[in-house]
Amino acid sequence: MRGMTKEQLVENIKKKGSFLCIGLDVDLDKIPPFLLEYEDPIFEFNKRIIDATKDLCVAYKPNIAFYECHGTKGWEALKKTVDYIPDDIFTIADAKRGDIGNTSHYYAKTFFEYMNFDSVTVAPYMGVDSVTPFLEYDGKWVILLALTSNKGALDFQFTTDINGEKLFEKVLKKSAAWGNSSQLMYVVGATRSEAIGEVRAMSPDYFFLVPGVGAQGGSLEDVATYGWNDSCGILVNSSRGIIYAGNEEDFADKARLAALDLQSQMAKILKEKGL
Amino acid sequence: MRGMTKEQLVENIKKKGSFLCIGLDVDLDKIPPFLLEYEDPIFEFNKRIIDATKDLCVAYKPNIAFYECHGTKGWEALKKTVDYIPDDIFTIADAKRGDIGNTSHYYAKTFFEYMNFDSVTVAPYMGVDSVTPFLEYDGKWVILLALTSNKGALDFQFTTDINGEKLFEKVLKKSAAWGNSSQLMYVVGATRSEAIGEVRAMSPDYFFLVPGVGAQGGSLEDVATYGWNDSCGILVNSSRGIIYAGNEEDFADKARLAALDLQSQMAKILKEKGL
Repeated sequence: MRGMTKEQLVENIKKKGSFLCIGLDVDLDKIPPFLLEYEDPIFEFNKRIIDATKDLCVAYKPNIAFYECHGTKGWEALKKTVDYIPDDIFTIADAKRGDIGNTSHYYAKTFFEYMNFDSVTVAPYMGVDSVTPFLEYDGKWVILLALTSNKGALDFQFTTDINGEKLFEKVLKKSAAWGNSSQLMYVVGATRSEAIGEVRAMSPDYFFLVPGVGAQGGSLEDVATYGWNDSCGILVNSSRGIIYAGNEEDFADKARLAALDLQSQMAKILKEKGL
Repeated sequence: MRGMTKEQLVENIKKKGSFLCIGLDVDLDKIPPFLLEYEDPIFEFNKRIIDATKDLCVAYKPNIAFYECHGTKGWEALKKTVDYIPDDIFTIADAKRGDIGNTSHYYAKTFFEYMNFDSVTVAPYMGVDSVTPFLEYDGKWVILLALTSNKGALDFQFTTDINGEKLFEKVLKKSAAWGNSSQLMYVVGATRSEAIGEVRAMSPDYFFLVPGVGAQGGSLEDVATYGWNDSCGILVNSSRGIIYAGNEEDFADKARLAALDLQSQMAKILKEKGL
């Protein structure tokens, strides 16, 4: 069964000069049309993207919505994709699950046992018993939503309580008692870079999964400036900017170039920071 | 394609003397062992439960976690189950999804198009653009988490802001601008009956999906006292208390008796309330 320690993840980051996560959000309307003739176009697309980028990234993150919407075919493509990703690359099921304890237990089974991911994203609204069943697996990770990159993040996440504490701060504080930084990470959106600094101050040891660089407008330098810790501490995700960089026969080469562009910037940052 | 108006739902409640929702949380470790010999034990179980209870309830709610954990087989059993439920019974995908707009759009496709449910439960943490893509389907419903029935509900949902407003109240207030009571319902747990009254005062016209009666300890009378509105306005869910009432060859008869017990109480309440 897959699984990765924090030390192994940090080692991979140093070795590859990269803290890049590539989001495998495969949309049949966006992939090169010639792939649609294959028996499993989703897996065929992912396979070629993985082959072209696996030396440049330390994580892959399929967003489950893009697979579920194809029913059983989507689940098969997802399973094949996870199996195809080399074991030394961290895998993230971007599923944003969370339910009462008895039910979260089954979601954990789905993503950690059946699908064999290293980690899963979880939504915090239902509190402790919706999160802890995922934390019971050795070597597996929960990536909890703290501060998301979308417009709707402003609706509830910045709500300030009577003690001056924002909701996302409360999520960080409470959840730190549920899991340590070797089993729990946080989603912290790149589109609010000053807030990343606040989150880093509150959670010095935890890794952040940072979406929102690229299509959503976040800046890699800002994320590194505000989010860094002495183990790097950030996984920066890019999905559409890499996987849809091209739309022809050479799409995988184009994806590689887009990934290489980000990875080169990351290598430079890692060097500057002494990692 | 399935779909149900609020008027049709209320009509069904009156006709059947029931506001019962049955949760189809099928666990292979809990179903009668003789069913495991069938090709699709999950569907076989659901089919018999549906046959035995469909005149007593107005909704069925499969919790998606229990299907996902079996991968493609689980998804097939789920699809067959939804197809098997008569069209005049409301179907709820208890999936607790929610992601950035582009992604929620694909979750909506999954549950409303591919799976053909009438409704899906959605988590509010990511705000407006995580919810509105689900509201774009005519005749389909979002059931938004407001106040859940579990212990962890206390972690964040009761957080009071500087204006004295609790987080679940903010969810009710903001989301009322996103969808009206003919397309949006709320999850309001039965285990906090006084709070149900608060929610009803804030959202007089909306239906509530009320889990937590039975195994989790909530009381049907309290729910009806605090949650009622002039169209009934509540769907009370029971899962384990009904579907696992028996564990032998006659499990479907036992499930019927357990459902009948709740439905009789509901018929009495409906009569007292003049519906």
